[in-house]
This record gives sequence, C-alpha cells and structure tokens, in this order.
Amino acid sequence: MRAEIVAVGTELLLGQIADTNAQWMSQQLAAIGIDVTHHQAVGDNQERIVEALRLAASRADVVLVCGGLGPTEDDITRDAIAELAGVPLVFHDDLEQMLREKFRRWSAIGSMPQSNLRQATVPEGATTILPDRGTAPGLIVQLDGTRLYAVPGVPDEMREMLTGTVLPELRALAGGEVIVSQVLRVAGMGESAVAERLADLFAASSNPTIAYLASMGEVKVRLTAKARSEDDAGALLAPLVEEVRARLGDVVFTDRDESLEAAVIRLLTASGRHLACAESLTGGGVGERLTSVPGASAAFLGSAVVYTADMKRRVLGLTHEDLSGGTVTEACALAMAKGTRDLFAADVGLALTGAAGPDPHDGAEPGTIWVAIADDVGLVHARGFAARGERDRVRRWAEQGGLDLVRRYLEGIPLPETSLPVG
Amino acid sequence: MRAEIVAVGTELLLGQIADTNAQWMSQQLAAIGIDVTHHQAVGDNQERIVEALRLAASRADVVLVCGGLGPTEDDITRDAIAELAGVPLVFHDDLEQMLREKFRRWSAIGSMPQSNLRQATVPEGATTILPDRGTAPGLIVQLDGTRLYAVPGVPDEMREMLTGTVLPELRALAGGEVIVSQVLRVAGMGESAVAERLADLFAASSNPTIAYLASMGEVKVRLTAKARSEDDAGALLAPLVEEVRARLGDVVFTDRDESLEAAVIRLLTASGRHLACAESLTGGGVGERLTSVPGASAAFLGSAVVYTADMKRRVLGLTHEDLSGGTVTEACALAMAKGTRDLFAADVGLALTGAAGPDPHDGAEPGTIWVAIADDVGLVHARGFAARGERDRVRRWAEQGGLDLVRRYLEGIPLPETSLPVG
Repeated sequence: MRAEIVAVGTELLLGQIADTNAQWMSQQLAAIGIDVTHHQAVGDNQERIVEALRLAASRADVVLVCGGLGPTEDDITRDAIAELAGVPLVFHDDLEQMLREKFRRWSAIGSMPQSNLRQATVPEGATTILPDRGTAPGLIVQLDGTRLYAVPGVPDEMREMLTGTVLPELRALAGGEVIVSQVLRVAGMGESAVAERLADLFAASSNPTIAYLASMGEVKVRLTAKARSEDDAGALLAPLVEEVRARLGDVVFTDRDESLEAAVIRLLTASGRHLACAESLTGGGVGERLTSVPGASAAFLGSAVVYTADMKRRVLGLTHEDLSGGTVTEACALAMAKGTRDLFAADVGLALTGAAGPDPHDGAEPGTIWVAIADDVGLVHARGFAARGERDRVRRWAEQGGLDLVRRYLEGIPLPETSLPVG
Repeated sequence: MRAEIVAVGTELLLGQIADTNAQWMSQQLAAIGIDVTHHQAVGDNQERIVEALRLAASRADVVLVCGGLGPTEDDITRDAIAELAGVPLVFHDDLEQMLREKFRRWSAIGSMPQSNLRQATVPEGATTILPDRGTAPGLIVQLDGTRLYAVPGVPDEMREMLTGTVLPELRALAGGEVIVSQVLRVAGMGESAVAERLADLFAASSNPTIAYLASMGEVKVRLTAKARSEDDAGALLAPLVEEVRARLGDVVFTDRDESLEAAVIRLLTASGRHLACAESLTGGGVGERLTSVPGASAAFLGSAVVYTADMKRRVLGLTHEDLSGGTVTEACALAMAKGTRDLFAADVGLALTGAAGPDPHDGAEPGTIWVAIADDVGLVHARGFAARGERDRVRRWAEQGGLDLVRRYLEGIPLPETSLPVG
C-alpha cells in the first residue's frame, strides 16, 4: 500500500515552520508497513491544493492531507477537497452543535466566533473525525481508488486523529502482516557507544530489525518484528530484546517506552516514597517533567527553584561553607539535596546545579553539572559531569543526569561515578 | 519570480529526519522576494526524481533540488538531472583533482574511496559550484525557461552554496525586490477572534499581506511587505502594523518576535524588579521558561513548586483558611502569590494553581486555572479562567495566563478580569 502526504500552509513555504507533521506521519506509516512515496507542500491557494491532491490521488492508495481545516478564511482544504471530489460543501447541524458545546465548556474563550461555523461544513459524502482537543473535524473521503484523510495542521490535533482513527483503519486495510515494536530507552550512554555494543546484531538483523533514535540525553533502541500474528511477532522479538538488554546493562531505564520521568514516578509510587527537588540551572524543568506524568502527586512533593546564591541560602538554608567554592560544586549540590529534603519533609531530595552557558558561571566552565541526592537514612551521593553544546542542551543533560540518578537509587543499582575532576 | 524546492532522500519519506533544509531555503528565498510555491520530497529513485523535477520545471522559474549528490550508489540526483535535460554525464578531470586534493588534506580519512569519483561526473553543459566543506559539487543547469540548482543535502554544505552562489545569483536575476516581515505576538485571544478583528484587512491585503500562525496559547500575526528596498517595504508595512496593533489592543505582547517569557524578563530587567513564582499545576514550567532566557538571573529569583496542599502550607505558609475552599481557588492563588513573594523576598510574586486533568482535582473541573500576582506595595490580583484539552495544553494555558498577567502588570495596562464564576 502506497501513501502520499500533502501539507497545506503558506507558513511552510515561507519557512516559518519545518514540516515536522510530515516527518511524524511518515514514521507512523512506516511502522505499520505502509510505503510513503512523496511529500508535497503547497500554500493556502485552492487551485494549487486541488492540483496537489489530484496528483497525489493519481499515484497513491492513501493520501493524507494536513492543515487548512481551521476557522479562518485562509483555511480552504475543505473547499479544495469538495472541488476535487466534484461535490458541494454541506452544512452539518451536529457539527455546529459539537462546536457550540465546546465553546460553552471553554467559556473563558468567550462565545463562539461566527467564523468557526466554517468548520461545520464538509464535502458531501465525507465521513468526519470528531476532534477531541481542537475544533477542526477531520475528513475521510473515498475517491476513485484512493482513500483521502484530511487532518488539522496543529500537531497534537493531527496526532490525535492519526492515532485514534487513521492509523487503526489503515492497519486494518493493509491486512495480513502485523508489525510489533519494542523500544528500550537508554540514559547515560551515547548513540555511538550503544551502536558499537550492538554492531554485529545490527548488521545481521533483517527480521526483527534494530533502529536507533537519539534525542537529547537519550537513545531509543527500537526492535521491530513483522509476522502473521502478534504472537508470532512477539516470539521473534523476545530473544533479541533479551540479548540487547544483556549487552547494554543498567543504562536501559525502561522497556515500556515510558519517559525517564514516568519511570521515576512509577518507581517512587511503587516504593511509597516521596521526592523533592532543588533546581538551579534547570529552573524548574525537572519538576515540570515529573508533574507531566498523571498521578505524579502521589510521589512528587515539589521543587525549590533557587536561581541565585542568595536564594540557595534563604530558601534552602545553605551556609557560607556550602557555598565557599561557588554554586557549581559538589558541596553545593549535596547541601541543596539535603536542604530540599528538609524543606519539603521528603524521603529523597534531588538537587541540580551547573553552568548552563553560554558564559562561565561562578568559576565553572559552561556545561559543568553537579547532581546530588540525599535520602532519609543518611545516604548522600553527588555526581559531576560535563555536557557540551547550547544552553537548552546542557539543561536537558542535567535533567537526564538528575532523574537517572534517582532511577538508579530506587532500583538499587550502582550510582554513577563522577566523571569530572573533583578537588 | 517563482521557485520550487525538491528534496531527495528516502530518509525523509521514512520520517527519520524533518525537511529543515526546505524550511531554511524557503526563508532565504522569501527574504529576497522570491515566492516559493511548492515543496516536494521524493526518495532515492531515479524515475521519481525525474518526474518531480519535470513537474517543478513546468511551473517554476527556479528549481532548487537538495540531496542525492553524495558518493554512494543511492546518490542519483546527477543521473536524474542528466535524464531530465536529455544530456549525457561527463567526467571532469578538474573535479577529480579537486576531490583528490581534499582527501590529501584530510589525510586522517585515508585515501579517496573509488566511489567518490562519481562526484566528478556532471550532466553535460552544467556549471559546477565547487564545495568548500564537503566533496559534492553543486550543479547549475539552464533548462528551457527554468534555472535548476542542485545542492547537497548535508545542511552546512547546502547553506554554504546557497549563501555563496545561489542566492546572490537569484537576487541579481530577481532585480532586487526585498521582502520585510514584522510579527506581532498575541496572548489571551484565540486565532479565530484575532482573525475576526482583522477580517477586512486580511481580505483586502495583497502587499503587505497578513498571515496567522497559532500555537499553544499564542497567535502570531505576520505582516509582510515586498518592495524595491528595505525602506520602501518598511514604509508599506508601518501603517498596517499600526492599524493591526490598534485593533488588537493590549493582547499584543510584543512586536519584536520574542517569546512571552523573554518579554517578561525584558520588562522586569528594565524596571529593576525581581520576580518569584509559586507553581502548582505547572510543576516548574514557568520557572523553566523564564530561565531559558539568557540573563534571567538579573530578574528571576526562583519558584516554589508546591504540588500538594501540605506543601503549600509547609513551604509557603498557607493557612487553613486560605485552603478552606480547596487548592483551586482565588484565595489559594492569592495566598500562594503572597507566600512566594515573602519566601524569596521578591518584588513581585506570581502564583499558578489549577486542575490539569484528566480528572477533577480538589473539587475543581479539569481545565480550571487560577493565577495571581502580589507586589511590594500591596497590590494583589487574581484571575480565574478555564482551558480546554489535555493536561499539557491546560498547563500551557496556565503558563501563558500567568506570564501574561505579569507582563500586563509591568506594562501598567489593565489586568484581565476573571472569567470563571467566583463565589
């Protein structure tokens, strides 16, 4: 089965945004065994949208069109699809009701602008995909030999419809073969080191396959098997998963495709313990990530974001001695971890301090990071390491280093050693 | 002058990378007044590359093709261009010398692989662009009515050739039109409400043009003018910018294309004041955003992330009375704002509390948000509102509402009223 993706939006042609929707959709389609042969992007211009869709429909079994379903006058994907299919646009009372109901619930936004009624019109004969997050209904139109799906350009609205409707339908249409993936997520080891340990497996793999995806501070190892049934695919996968786990060891923080923060919340909740953080260079990023996990309040008490030396003293009670070497030191990180454990009366305190850059900070080179934990039975452990790159990258590595320290502590495995010279 | 961008590479169709080259090239072309009407992406398949180039050449004055100029067997853009132009590939001795010379200089890489000689073949009649960083020569081919430029897909090799050769040539060919854009960024008003206020301007606009781009909790309004010179474009733009500002009023938080957190840090720094936050549902997200701005430490002291009612009492000193209605109330938000101002000895305290969802929290419906500020001369102001959607979206709207409250306070403009029933 062949698919083609058509993105609609002048902002793409002006270079205001990159077409990350096409990337995400392509990944998802590849994962269910559908070949994507072309991407196209066109502006908010009806003639060009129709022309692009006609071309796509002439060569693909499935066309995904993304964008141009909003409420404003430059949102004309609905009109273009109607023109392509040779049908009129018709007004759906039930969509109007859905829209009015959404605006009633979101009363802060005020009453529904008249323009949103555009979103209640659909090409005659089209099936609609009702939106959960946004207001734009998706559309499914069966053309001669091609199935066309139109989804909104707002990324989370697009993903909701792909995940909820489009991909399951395509998986069923594609028939027969089942693709099963398992992802092992790794923190504390770089992509090339991971690849080196798995090189011979990678070279030999055809089914299941191994793929790497590195993002900031993390490597995902995706193992994918294709078979007649889920059970068969699972049986192909199991020995490879075991081998990869054995080779990588305890840098694998999960085999559930959960984020590092979700693994930490899961481990805390399972052990009935409560965590508090003290954040300097990360500015609240660790708390933000932990609280993005539903149910975090059972395990996470809070975070003292203390962005200056004065506030480390005032809020966390650090002493002159704690800060004698500056704020980017082992002593400062340990005192912050103990201080926040006391402030929040937590079982475990995690502290993060460092020089995010671009300039040196308090005598420390940009990229210098100290993370530390302190627990309720007197264990304290600090780790110093260096991250390279821009400010946001250094902060991300600090978050990963801190969260992984807690993960290892809770799993009872060896805590990482300092890789910075200490003294 | 119309341009079209064709990207070549199977990795794009598999979703392994996003087409950020097309984004960057589009920005550069827009800046010199060249309209980009289409993007296409195709895999490493000669027939499809030729088809895509033929289509592009049929409708554009300029075609930029990016990728497929490397030394390996799947690099076939050279072959496709030769087929399209109906000419043979010819071997250039001077390109071979250039390649051998590069490999001699990079002796660490070892001797030149035989495959690199592919890069010394070019379609007959093509002009070459010599590479500085990489090994792939760029190509310029004059087709009937269309000028085609082929550049490597490695981003810095592509940029080098665009900046050094392609853009200067196109600027000269385009006869000097210049495009100037100004972006107004809006918080606290949805895209459709913005569009409604500007509908007649939008309908009437051709030069300058108006475009909207909505992202979570924010709308960007981009005004773009095309003229003979920067001054002329600026003069076309100025009255429209003024009119749009007048119609939208104080929901425009900046005309500098800076983020809301950067605007808040700028305003705080200019007034010499210090901010502290108290975050419940946002979990540290406001602190994280504020500290992503370089120089934030001059204006931001820290944030008390207090994720449970107990911690609001323990860390911020909230009383039984403050919490009598639960944690998602005006009284709680106001007490948190005052509490964090005291804790950090700040000039201004900002508090955020709410029910992020998916379930009701402490008696409040998911999406209910209270933000509040307290200052050093006794001003306190709280605002309650409702946000729609998933947990991450509710949190984002809370951040925007809180940051915008501080922005308005610092600009001395009216603070938004509560749009939730209070009682």
